[in-house]
Amino acid sequence: MPDMLDLDGLDFAKGDGFVTVVAQDARSGAVLMVARADREALERTMATREMHYHSRARGLWRKGATSGNVQHVVSLTPDCDGDVVLARVIPAGPACHTGRVSCFAG
Amino acid sequence: MPDMLDLDGLDFAKGDGFVTVVAQDARSGAVLMVARADREALERTMATREMHYHSRARGLWRKGATSGNVQHVVSLTPDCDGDVVLARVIPAGPACHTGRVSCFAG
Repeated sequence: MPDMLDLDGLDFAKGDGFVTVVAQDARSGAVLMVARADREALERTMATREMHYHSRARGLWRKGATSGNVQHVVSLTPDCDGDVVLARVIPAGPACHTGRVSCFAG
Repeated sequence: MPDMLDLDGLDFAKGDGFVTVVAQDARSGAVLMVARADREALERTMATREMHYHSRARGLWRKGATSGNVQHVVSLTPDCDGDVVLARVIPAGPACHTGRVSCFAG
């Protein structure tokens, strides 16, 4: 079971219903991507132990649903004011839609 | 000189004039904090090689201006769609106002 996140401790209001999620490779420490999640996406993340985000275009979005590059959750940690969540994950493949390991791979 | 960032390649419009900045300890790989920056904050960051952010309360904000816990810039890398910047930094002290090393230190 990944470290559970207390959703009631998050500040969704500040981001109009969303928090910012930073996904970090739990093994390498590489920052993989940054996206948004609403309560539903985080509930699905905890229920499935795979990262879910919320995209403007797609709505609820299971990372890897089409590419297969799911992100298995190791831990979910809120920041000090509850509007960002750090997700430590084991990625099944590249995080970026460009095929790079990380969206910051340049 | 830290890796230079092409500000014209960033998408400030998506965030109403702001991009999201993830600060990561360049030595430990720890994710330290997430904040926002506008063009001015990034210009000051590159000119001084110390992280500047933009806070709703303070406006332009040099990290460590009061605490002394500045963040020296090692590199600044945009993500694939230019609305997030990964800042690899050498922190002079705790990143979090709570005194913790990281805002995600729990």
